[in-house]
Amino acid sequence: MFGSLIDTLIQNLRCLPGVGNKSAQRMALHLLERDKPGALKLAQTILEAVEKIGRCDCCRSLTEESLCPICSSGRRHSRQVCVVETPADLYAIEQAAGFFGTYFVLYGHLSPIDGIGPEELGIDKLMDRLQTDNLDELILATNLTLEGETTAHFIADKARSLNVAVSRIAYGVPMGGELEYVDGGTLNLALESRKVF
Amino acid sequence: MFGSLIDTLIQNLRCLPGVGNKSAQRMALHLLERDKPGALKLAQTILEAVEKIGRCDCCRSLTEESLCPICSSGRRHSRQVCVVETPADLYAIEQAAGFFGTYFVLYGHLSPIDGIGPEELGIDKLMDRLQTDNLDELILATNLTLEGETTAHFIADKARSLNVAVSRIAYGVPMGGELEYVDGGTLNLALESRKVF
Repeated sequence: MFGSLIDTLIQNLRCLPGVGNKSAQRMALHLLERDKPGALKLAQTILEAVEKIGRCDCCRSLTEESLCPICSSGRRHSRQVCVVETPADLYAIEQAAGFFGTYFVLYGHLSPIDGIGPEELGIDKLMDRLQTDNLDELILATNLTLEGETTAHFIADKARSLNVAVSRIAYGVPMGGELEYVDGGTLNLALESRKVF
Repeated sequence: MFGSLIDTLIQNLRCLPGVGNKSAQRMALHLLERDKPGALKLAQTILEAVEKIGRCDCCRSLTEESLCPICSSGRRHSRQVCVVETPADLYAIEQAAGFFGTYFVLYGHLSPIDGIGPEELGIDKLMDRLQTDNLDELILATNLTLEGETTAHFIADKARSLNVAVSRIAYGVPMGGELEYVDGGTLNLALESRKVF
Protein backbone atom coordinates (compact mmCIF):
# COMPACT_ATOMS: atom_id res chain seq x y z
CA MET A 1 0.00 0.00 0.00
CA PHE A 2 2.72 2.44 1.04
CA GLY A 3 5.58 0.33 -0.31
CA SER A 4 7.50 -2.60 1.01
CA LEU A 5 9.70 -0.71 3.50
CA ILE A 6 6.75 0.55 5.56
CA ASP A 7 5.19 -2.91 5.45
CA THR A 8 8.49 -4.38 6.70
CA LEU A 9 8.56 -1.81 9.50
CA ILE A 10 4.97 -2.71 10.50
CA GLN A 11 5.86 -6.40 10.38
CA ASN A 12 9.00 -5.94 12.50
CA LEU A 13 7.22 -3.81 15.11
CA ARG A 14 5.08 -6.86 15.77
CA CYS A 15 8.02 -8.54 17.51
CA LEU A 16 7.16 -6.29 20.48
CA PRO A 17 4.95 -8.07 23.04
CA GLY A 18 1.28 -7.08 22.95
CA VAL A 19 1.59 -5.40 19.55
CA GLY A 20 -0.77 -6.69 16.84
CA ASN A 21 -1.16 -5.55 13.26
CA LYS A 22 -3.29 -2.50 14.00
CA SER A 23 -1.02 -1.17 16.78
CA ALA A 24 2.09 -1.82 14.69
CA GLN A 25 0.58 0.17 11.83
CA ARG A 26 -0.29 3.02 14.19
CA MET A 27 3.24 2.96 15.62
CA ALA A 28 4.91 2.95 12.19
CA LEU A 29 2.82 5.85 10.91
CA HIS A 30 3.33 7.79 14.14
CA LEU A 31 7.11 7.40 13.98
CA LEU A 32 7.34 8.33 10.30
CA GLU A 33 4.85 11.18 10.35
CA ARG A 34 5.43 12.77 13.71
CA ASP A 35 8.47 11.57 15.57
CA LYS A 36 11.45 10.83 13.34
CA PRO A 37 13.96 12.06 15.97
CA GLY A 38 12.33 9.77 18.57
CA ALA A 39 12.45 6.88 16.10
CA LEU A 40 16.15 7.42 15.45
CA LYS A 41 16.94 7.58 19.17
CA LEU A 42 14.87 4.45 19.78
CA ALA A 43 16.65 2.51 17.01
CA GLN A 44 20.09 3.55 18.23
CA THR A 45 19.25 2.64 21.84
CA ILE A 46 17.99 -0.79 20.76
CA LEU A 47 21.21 -1.42 18.81
CA GLU A 48 23.37 -0.29 21.73
CA ALA A 49 21.34 -2.28 24.26
CA VAL A 50 21.42 -5.49 22.20
CA GLU A 51 25.18 -5.12 21.77
CA LYS A 52 26.12 -4.20 25.34
CA ILE A 53 23.57 -5.71 27.69
CA GLY A 54 24.39 -9.11 29.05
CA ARG A 55 23.95 -10.97 32.32
CA CYS A 56 25.41 -9.93 35.67
CA ASP A 57 28.27 -12.26 36.67
CA CYS A 58 26.83 -12.59 40.17
CA CYS A 59 23.01 -12.60 39.95
CA ARG A 60 22.43 -13.19 36.20
CA SER A 61 20.19 -10.11 36.00
CA LEU A 62 20.39 -7.94 32.87
CA THR A 63 23.09 -5.28 32.91
CA GLU A 64 25.60 -3.51 30.68
CA GLU A 65 28.45 -3.91 33.22
CA SER A 66 29.98 -7.14 34.50
CA LEU A 67 28.15 -6.62 37.82
CA CYS A 68 24.64 -5.11 37.97
CA PRO A 69 24.03 -1.95 40.07
CA ILE A 70 22.42 -4.05 42.83
CA CYS A 71 25.30 -6.56 43.16
CA SER A 72 27.93 -3.82 43.01
CA SER A 73 26.12 -1.58 45.51
CA GLY A 74 27.70 -1.51 48.97
CA ARG A 75 24.34 -0.78 50.58
CA ARG A 76 22.56 -4.06 49.85
CA HIS A 77 22.58 -7.02 52.24
CA SER A 78 24.61 -9.36 50.08
CA ARG A 79 24.08 -12.30 52.45
CA GLN A 80 20.35 -12.35 51.72
CA VAL A 81 19.52 -13.67 48.24
CA CYS A 82 16.09 -13.62 46.61
CA VAL A 83 15.57 -16.11 43.77
CA VAL A 84 13.20 -14.93 40.99
CA GLU A 85 12.17 -16.42 37.68
CA THR A 86 12.64 -13.36 35.44
CA PRO A 87 14.18 -9.87 35.42
CA ALA A 88 10.59 -8.54 35.32
CA ASP A 89 9.97 -10.17 38.73
CA LEU A 90 13.15 -8.55 40.06
CA TYR A 91 11.94 -5.22 38.69
CA ALA A 92 8.56 -5.65 40.41
CA ILE A 93 10.19 -6.36 43.79
CA GLU A 94 12.57 -3.42 43.37
CA GLN A 95 9.71 -1.09 42.55
CA ALA A 96 7.91 -2.20 45.71
CA ALA A 97 11.06 -0.86 47.44
CA GLY A 98 10.84 -3.05 50.54
CA PHE A 99 13.66 -5.54 49.93
CA PHE A 100 17.30 -4.64 50.52
CA GLY A 101 19.10 -7.90 49.79
CA THR A 102 20.41 -9.19 46.46
CA TYR A 103 18.90 -11.40 43.78
CA PHE A 104 19.43 -14.43 41.62
CA VAL A 105 17.57 -14.67 38.31
CA LEU A 106 16.72 -18.13 36.95
CA TYR A 107 15.28 -17.07 33.55
CA GLY A 108 12.47 -19.58 33.78
CA HIS A 109 11.56 -22.62 35.83
CA LEU A 110 12.34 -26.33 35.71
CA SER A 111 10.55 -27.81 32.73
CA PRO A 112 12.04 -31.14 31.62
CA ILE A 113 9.60 -31.32 28.70
CA ASP A 114 11.20 -28.17 27.21
CA GLY A 115 14.70 -29.37 28.06
CA ILE A 116 15.08 -26.84 30.88
CA GLY A 117 16.93 -28.43 33.78
CA PRO A 118 18.99 -27.09 36.71
CA GLU A 119 21.89 -26.25 34.39
CA GLU A 120 19.85 -23.91 32.17
CA LEU A 121 18.57 -22.08 35.28
CA GLY A 122 22.10 -21.61 36.64
CA ILE A 123 21.30 -23.51 39.85
CA ASP A 124 24.91 -24.80 40.09
CA LYS A 125 26.08 -21.20 40.01
CA LEU A 126 23.59 -20.34 42.76
CA MET A 127 24.86 -23.24 44.91
CA ASP A 128 28.49 -22.10 44.38
CA ARG A 129 27.43 -18.68 45.59
CA LEU A 130 25.69 -20.17 48.64
CA GLN A 131 28.90 -21.99 49.61
CA THR A 132 31.39 -19.19 49.01
CA ASP A 133 29.34 -16.18 50.20
CA ASN A 134 28.29 -17.70 53.52
CA LEU A 135 24.65 -16.63 53.12
CA ASP A 136 22.20 -15.90 55.93
CA GLU A 137 19.03 -16.60 53.99
CA LEU A 138 17.81 -17.78 50.60
CA ILE A 139 14.36 -16.39 49.77
CA LEU A 140 12.46 -18.28 47.07
CA ALA A 141 10.23 -15.95 45.07
CA THR A 142 9.37 -18.13 42.09
CA ASN A 143 5.77 -17.99 40.84
CA LEU A 144 3.00 -19.90 42.62
CA THR A 145 2.46 -22.18 39.65
CA LEU A 146 3.12 -25.90 39.48
CA GLU A 147 6.46 -25.25 37.77
CA GLY A 148 7.41 -22.42 40.09
CA GLU A 149 6.67 -24.55 43.17
CA THR A 150 8.63 -27.49 41.78
CA THR A 151 11.59 -25.23 41.09
CA ALA A 152 11.36 -23.76 44.61
CA HIS A 153 11.32 -27.26 46.18
CA PHE A 154 14.27 -28.37 44.09
CA ILE A 155 16.37 -25.33 45.07
CA ALA A 156 15.28 -25.59 48.73
CA ASP A 157 16.44 -29.22 48.95
CA LYS A 158 19.85 -28.37 47.50
CA ALA A 159 20.26 -25.29 49.73
CA ARG A 160 19.28 -27.15 52.92
CA SER A 161 21.97 -29.74 52.22
CA LEU A 162 24.43 -26.81 52.37
CA ASN A 163 22.93 -25.67 55.69
CA VAL A 164 21.51 -22.41 54.35
CA ALA A 165 18.22 -21.10 55.81
CA VAL A 166 15.56 -21.19 53.11
CA SER A 167 12.26 -19.28 53.04
CA ARG A 168 9.40 -18.91 50.57
CA ILE A 169 7.50 -15.64 50.04
CA ALA A 170 4.02 -15.64 51.59
CA TYR A 171 0.92 -16.25 49.54
CA GLY A 172 -2.58 -15.26 50.61
CA VAL A 173 -5.21 -12.60 50.15
CA PRO A 174 -3.64 -9.52 48.42
CA MET A 175 -3.68 -6.10 50.05
CA GLY A 176 -7.05 -4.42 49.60
CA GLY A 177 -8.46 -7.77 48.50
CA GLU A 178 -12.11 -8.40 49.31
CA LEU A 179 -12.70 -12.02 50.31
CA GLU A 180 -15.86 -12.17 48.18
CA TYR A 181 -13.83 -11.67 45.00
CA VAL A 182 -10.69 -13.66 45.82
CA ASP A 183 -10.41 -17.02 44.02
CA GLY A 184 -10.91 -20.28 45.92
CA GLY A 185 -7.32 -21.48 45.58
CA THR A 186 -5.96 -18.29 47.15
CA LEU A 187 -8.57 -18.42 49.94
CA ASN A 188 -7.62 -22.00 50.83
CA LEU A 189 -3.93 -21.05 50.87
CA ALA A 190 -4.65 -18.03 53.05
CA LEU A 191 -6.54 -20.22 55.52
CA GLU A 192 -3.85 -22.91 55.59
CA SER A 193 -1.10 -20.35 56.14
CA ARG A 194 -2.98 -18.47 58.88
CA LYS A 195 -0.87 -16.77 61.54
CA VAL A 196 -1.31 -16.18 65.27
CA PHE A 197 -2.98 -12.76 65.66
CA MET B 1 17.80 -0.93 38.83
CA PHE B 2 19.30 -2.73 35.82
CA GLY B 3 21.61 0.13 34.85
CA SER B 4 21.17 3.28 32.84
CA LEU B 5 21.14 1.71 29.36
CA ILE B 6 18.05 -0.41 30.06
CA ASP B 7 16.35 2.58 31.67
CA THR B 8 17.15 4.65 28.55
CA LEU B 9 15.71 1.90 26.36
CA ILE B 10 12.51 1.81 28.46
CA GLN B 11 12.29 5.61 28.27
CA ASN B 12 12.81 5.68 24.49
CA LEU B 13 10.24 2.93 23.86
CA ARG B 14 7.69 5.31 25.32
CA CYS B 15 7.86 7.42 22.16
CA LEU B 16 5.64 4.74 20.60
CA PRO B 17 1.93 5.67 20.73
CA GLY B 18 -0.08 3.87 23.42
CA VAL B 19 3.03 2.67 25.26
CA GLY B 20 3.26 3.65 28.94
CA ASN B 21 5.93 2.84 31.47
CA LYS B 22 4.76 -0.69 32.24
CA SER B 23 4.43 -1.73 28.58
CA ALA B 24 7.79 -0.15 27.72
CA GLN B 25 9.43 -2.13 30.52
CA ARG B 26 7.79 -5.32 29.31
CA MET B 27 8.93 -4.61 25.75
CA ALA B 28 12.52 -3.85 26.76
CA LEU B 29 12.84 -7.02 28.86
CA HIS B 30 11.21 -9.10 26.14
CA LEU B 31 13.61 -7.82 23.47
CA LEU B 32 16.70 -8.29 25.63
CA GLU B 33 15.76 -11.63 27.15
CA ARG B 34 14.00 -13.38 24.34
CA ASP B 35 14.27 -11.71 20.97
CA LYS B 36 17.62 -10.06 20.31
CA PRO B 37 17.53 -10.94 16.57
CA GLY B 38 14.04 -9.38 16.32
CA ALA B 39 15.28 -6.30 18.18
CA LEU B 40 18.21 -5.88 15.79
CA LYS B 41 15.99 -6.27 12.75
CA LEU B 42 13.52 -3.76 14.20
CA ALA B 43 16.24 -1.18 14.93
CA GLN B 44 17.72 -1.53 11.45
CA THR B 45 14.32 -1.23 9.78
CA ILE B 46 13.52 1.91 11.80
CA LEU B 47 16.84 3.48 10.76
CA GLU B 48 16.30 2.57 7.12
CA ALA B 49 12.68 3.75 7.15
CA VAL B 50 13.51 7.09 8.79
CA GLU B 51 16.25 7.67 6.24
CA LYS B 52 14.43 6.59 3.08
CA ILE B 53 10.73 7.21 3.58
CA GLY B 54 9.41 10.55 2.40
CA ARG B 55 6.28 11.84 0.74
CA CYS B 56 4.98 10.79 -2.66
CA ASP B 57 5.47 13.58 -5.23
CA CYS B 58 1.93 13.17 -6.46
CA CYS B 59 -0.33 12.35 -3.47
CA ARG B 60 1.94 13.20 -0.49
CA SER B 61 1.40 9.73 1.01
CA LEU B 62 4.35 8.04 2.73
CA THR B 63 6.65 6.07 0.43
CA GLU B 64 10.29 5.21 -0.14
CA GLU B 65 10.12 5.95 -3.90
CA SER B 66 9.38 9.28 -5.56
CA LEU B 67 5.90 7.97 -6.46
CA CYS B 68 3.93 5.69 -4.10
CA PRO B 69 2.74 2.27 -5.34
CA ILE B 70 -0.81 3.61 -5.78
CA CYS B 71 0.17 6.64 -7.88
CA SER B 72 2.59 4.61 -10.00
CA SER B 73 0.12 1.74 -10.53
CA GLY B 74 -1.41 1.61 -13.99
CA ARG B 75 -4.54 -0.05 -12.63
CA ARG B 76 -5.91 2.80 -10.52
CA HIS B 77 -8.37 5.41 -11.84
CA SER B 78 -6.03 8.38 -11.70
CA ARG B 79 -8.82 10.81 -12.60
CA GLN B 80 -10.66 10.10 -9.34
CA VAL B 81 -8.91 11.58 -6.29
CA CYS B 82 -9.87 10.94 -2.68
CA VAL B 83 -8.69 13.57 -0.17
CA VAL B 84 -7.86 12.22 3.32
CA GLU B 85 -6.41 13.81 6.45
CA THR B 86 -3.73 11.22 7.29
CA PRO B 87 -1.92 8.20 5.81
CA ALA B 88 -3.78 6.10 8.42
CA ASP B 89 -7.09 7.14 6.78
CA LEU B 90 -5.67 6.15 3.38
CA TYR B 91 -4.63 2.82 4.88
CA ALA B 92 -8.13 2.25 6.28
CA ILE B 93 -9.78 2.92 2.90
CA GLU B 94 -7.27 0.68 1.11
CA GLN B 95 -7.91 -2.14 3.57
CA ALA B 96 -11.66 -1.83 2.92
CA ALA B 97 -10.63 -2.60 -0.70
CA GLY B 98 -13.58 -0.91 -2.38
CA PHE B 99 -11.94 2.22 -3.86
CA PHE B 100 -9.88 2.11 -7.02
CA GLY B 101 -8.96 5.76 -7.53
CA THR B 102 -5.98 7.67 -6.20
CA TYR B 103 -5.47 9.79 -3.08
CA PHE B 104 -4.26 13.09 -1.76
CA VAL B 105 -3.04 13.27 1.86
CA LEU B 106 -3.42 16.60 3.71
CA TYR B 107 -1.56 15.62 6.92
CA GLY B 108 -4.10 17.38 9.12
CA HIS B 109 -6.91 19.89 8.70
CA LEU B 110 -7.21 23.66 8.55
CA SER B 111 -6.49 25.03 12.00
CA PRO B 112 -5.52 28.73 11.96
CA ILE B 113 -4.96 28.68 15.72
CA ASP B 114 -2.11 26.17 15.23
CA GLY B 115 -0.80 28.03 12.18
CA ILE B 116 -2.05 25.34 9.77
CA GLY B 117 -3.37 26.97 6.63
CA PRO B 118 -3.92 25.80 3.02
CA GLU B 119 -0.18 25.92 2.34
CA GLU B 120 0.73 23.44 5.11
CA LEU B 121 -1.94 21.03 3.82
CA GLY B 122 -0.60 21.20 0.26
CA ILE B 123 -3.92 22.48 -1.10
CA ASP B 124 -2.13 24.51 -3.81
CA LYS B 125 -0.48 21.32 -4.97
CA LEU B 126 -3.88 19.60 -5.04
CA MET B 127 -5.33 22.45 -7.13
CA ASP B 128 -2.39 22.24 -9.57
CA ARG B 129 -3.14 18.54 -9.92
CA LEU B 130 -6.85 19.24 -10.52
CA GLN B 131 -5.95 21.61 -13.37
CA THR B 132 -3.28 19.53 -15.07
CA ASP B 133 -4.74 16.02 -14.63
CA ASN B 134 -8.22 16.86 -15.93
CA LEU B 135 -9.98 15.04 -13.05
CA ASP B 136 -13.44 13.46 -13.18
CA GLU B 137 -14.16 13.63 -9.47
CA LEU B 138 -12.71 14.90 -6.22
CA ILE B 139 -13.93 12.87 -3.22
CA LEU B 140 -13.59 14.58 0.15
CA ALA B 141 -12.97 12.04 2.91
CA THR B 142 -11.84 14.31 5.74
CA ASN B 143 -13.16 13.51 9.21
CA LEU B 144 -16.68 14.50 10.27
CA THR B 145 -15.37 16.96 12.85
CA LEU B 146 -15.71 20.71 12.82
CA GLU B 147 -12.18 21.05 11.43
CA GLY B 148 -12.62 18.23 8.91
CA GLU B 149 -15.87 19.77 7.62
CA THR B 150 -14.31 23.23 7.36
CA THR B 151 -11.39 21.80 5.42
CA ALA B 152 -13.77 19.91 3.12
CA HIS B 153 -15.80 23.09 2.42
CA PHE B 154 -12.64 25.08 1.73
CA ILE B 155 -11.32 22.51 -0.77
CA ALA B 156 -14.77 22.08 -2.36
CA ASP B 157 -15.06 25.84 -3.03
CA LYS B 158 -11.65 25.94 -4.67
CA ALA B 159 -12.29 22.82 -6.74
CA ARG B 160 -15.71 24.01 -7.95
CA SER B 161 -14.10 27.21 -9.25
CA LEU B 162 -11.97 24.91 -11.44
CA ASN B 163 -15.10 23.07 -12.64
CA VAL B 164 -14.23 19.76 -11.00
CA ALA B 165 -17.07 17.59 -9.67
CA VAL B 166 -16.78 17.39 -5.89
CA SER B 167 -18.36 14.80 -3.57
CA ARG B 168 -18.27 14.08 0.15
CA ILE B 169 -18.30 10.55 1.59
CA ALA B 170 -21.65 9.58 3.14
CA TYR B 171 -22.24 9.72 6.87
CA GLY B 172 -25.00 7.86 8.64
CA VAL B 173 -25.71 4.75 10.69
CA PRO B 174 -22.73 2.33 10.38
CA MET B 175 -23.14 -1.19 9.03
CA GLY B 176 -24.56 -3.50 11.68
CA GLY B 177 -25.45 -0.41 13.74
CA GLU B 178 -28.50 -0.71 15.97
CA LEU B 179 -30.46 2.54 16.09
CA GLU B 180 -30.92 2.25 19.85
CA TYR B 181 -27.19 2.57 20.42
CA VAL B 182 -26.27 5.10 17.72
CA ASP B 183 -25.54 8.62 19.01
CA GLY B 184 -28.03 11.43 18.38
CA GLY B 185 -25.77 13.42 16.04
CA THR B 186 -25.31 10.46 13.73
CA LEU B 187 -29.06 9.69 13.82
CA ASN B 188 -29.95 13.26 12.84
CA LEU B 189 -27.41 13.14 10.01
CA ALA B 190 -28.78 9.80 8.82
CA LEU B 191 -32.31 11.22 8.78
CA GLU B 192 -31.29 14.42 6.98
CA SER B 193 -29.35 12.48 4.34
CA ARG B 194 -32.12 9.91 3.75
CA LYS B 195 -32.34 8.43 0.25
CA VAL B 196 -35.23 7.32 -1.95
CA PHE B 197 -35.76 3.61 -1.29
